[in-house]
Amino acid sequence: MKQKVLITGGTGFVGNHLTELLLKSTELEIHATSFGSQISQVNLPASQVHQIDLTDFLATKQLLTQLQPDQIYHLAAITTASNSFAHASKILLNNVELQLNFFQVLTELKSQARILVVGSADEYGLSQPGELPITEEHPLRPINPYAVSKIAQDMLAYAYGQAQKLDVIRARPFNHIGPGQVGDFAVSAFAKQIALIEVGKQNELLVGNLKAKRDFSNVEDVVKAYQLLMSKGEPGQVYNIGSGQSVSMEWILSELIALAKVKIEVREDPARLRPSDTPEMVADISKITELGFKIQVPLKQSLARVLDYWRKQV
Amino acid sequence: MKQKVLITGGTGFVGNHLTELLLKSTELEIHATSFGSQISQVNLPASQVHQIDLTDFLATKQLLTQLQPDQIYHLAAITTASNSFAHASKILLNNVELQLNFFQVLTELKSQARILVVGSADEYGLSQPGELPITEEHPLRPINPYAVSKIAQDMLAYAYGQAQKLDVIRARPFNHIGPGQVGDFAVSAFAKQIALIEVGKQNELLVGNLKAKRDFSNVEDVVKAYQLLMSKGEPGQVYNIGSGQSVSMEWILSELIALAKVKIEVREDPARLRPSDTPEMVADISKITELGFKIQVPLKQSLARVLDYWRKQV
Repeated sequence: MKQKVLITGGTGFVGNHLTELLLKSTELEIHATSFGSQISQVNLPASQVHQIDLTDFLATKQLLTQLQPDQIYHLAAITTASNSFAHASKILLNNVELQLNFFQVLTELKSQARILVVGSADEYGLSQPGELPITEEHPLRPINPYAVSKIAQDMLAYAYGQAQKLDVIRARPFNHIGPGQVGDFAVSAFAKQIALIEVGKQNELLVGNLKAKRDFSNVEDVVKAYQLLMSKGEPGQVYNIGSGQSVSMEWILSELIALAKVKIEVREDPARLRPSDTPEMVADISKITELGFKIQVPLKQSLARVLDYWRKQV
Repeated sequence: MKQKVLITGGTGFVGNHLTELLLKSTELEIHATSFGSQISQVNLPASQVHQIDLTDFLATKQLLTQLQPDQIYHLAAITTASNSFAHASKILLNNVELQLNFFQVLTELKSQARILVVGSADEYGLSQPGELPITEEHPLRPINPYAVSKIAQDMLAYAYGQAQKLDVIRARPFNHIGPGQVGDFAVSAFAKQIALIEVGKQNELLVGNLKAKRDFSNVEDVVKAYQLLMSKGEPGQVYNIGSGQSVSMEWILSELIALAKVKIEVREDPARLRPSDTPEMVADISKITELGFKIQVPLKQSLARVLDYWRKQV
């Protein structure tokens, strides 16, 4: 009999890529949840895409009772790359309420599902010199409300896993990029602007802080890591997902500009400089590497794919 | 001119003791916030006790605009020693919303106040052998929704402090005891039952897990630590508050029984065994000790005072 998989937030950027990956297995029956105006591009029958507000206890309980999933990839959350201070209440309260509700339902149903909960490297926030690369034990020093909301989600998953005997594994992915990511994340923002400049719809490429160094992976590698954790992760544990290497935003920009078909003028935009940005983030990936994880898509190839994606959008 | 002090949650157990301590200084004008059915026993003029729901943005903004406090001791939160899973939504959402709202107001007012934010040792949760004593860098492994709510409060305080340039210091007190603490915290629960047995209103003393070891301080020492952090703490930093020593609940019980005026029968009560309780907690207090902190009230004396308090209540 097929294993039943539920992907919450399954029609978002990462959810789409995860669905594509899992569809390669004939052993799985895949369901996704979707919410609000999110437009599903996933290759699933309509009967397997469930419109649901995961802060609604009864609706969530009804769905999980009906599906009885064996595996849950819990991706649902409001995500943002921009200034989450301006939308702090919405992001924080939604993400906390959603997570609490989801785990209350799982507890009430005494769910036996294996649950992968997706946090974020943003939970680590500021690092001191000498604390890099960032292990899973790195202190949490979040610098915006979105990061706090991901900490709350992560910690709720841990607490319910421990105390309510749920089979919970947590992931903390570092930056990931790929086709389908919205244009307010830095790499997408660069690529989108280049595509616009190429067709004469924009004059200059506006950038924020280019000195910041980040650990980028292709979204396809990230969803493979999720699949690996689903089969081999240890309950109660948390795993970083990243490449183990950092590059500066300056380097990313120059690589993308090298791929452009026209000359690109760059200008700094004060509005894109986020307050209290952290200078460098790089993942210690020892823990997931021990499970067999290995990055497969080179970063330059990822950048080319993102640019090609935006060329089709603009 | 007097420094203006605001104590949020100022009419609660700790707030009362903090007010008493600060009233010894003639240099301070002390205000307290109070909410709901909480009964103020503080020795402040009625005009300095403000009934307010701190999740209300406009009311909070109005109060802070009117007071312009120089120092804020931010104690307000729903606290609980009992099973917070049963009241998870109320505790978690209230504590998160309250904290977010409070810091949004402080940000909007560009407050120059020094703000001491009170977290909890419960944020650390489960320890592995070899991780004791618990430093401020100990990983956060909360085992109930209350602990998660304190983490969210702590992290919001950190994030707003860093990004919005607020003068925030955080404290993580370990267990503290004293007159006025409600009867569902273990030491109060023991003392209350002994007082009831002494006057013939109860037969046996019901107990939970007696093997657990905890780090207990007298509430008077804890509020002195808050005062010390207000004057000497470093912005952005977090400080453990405790005695640096742990004792078993069994030891606490035997000390209290030794103080009883009648023979006490003890019986284990399954309802008092909390799920996934952590075996030992003991604070590493190096950081606050460096600022000059020193425990002054011996634990045995604290226990005697708590028992005397309950003798007057029953």
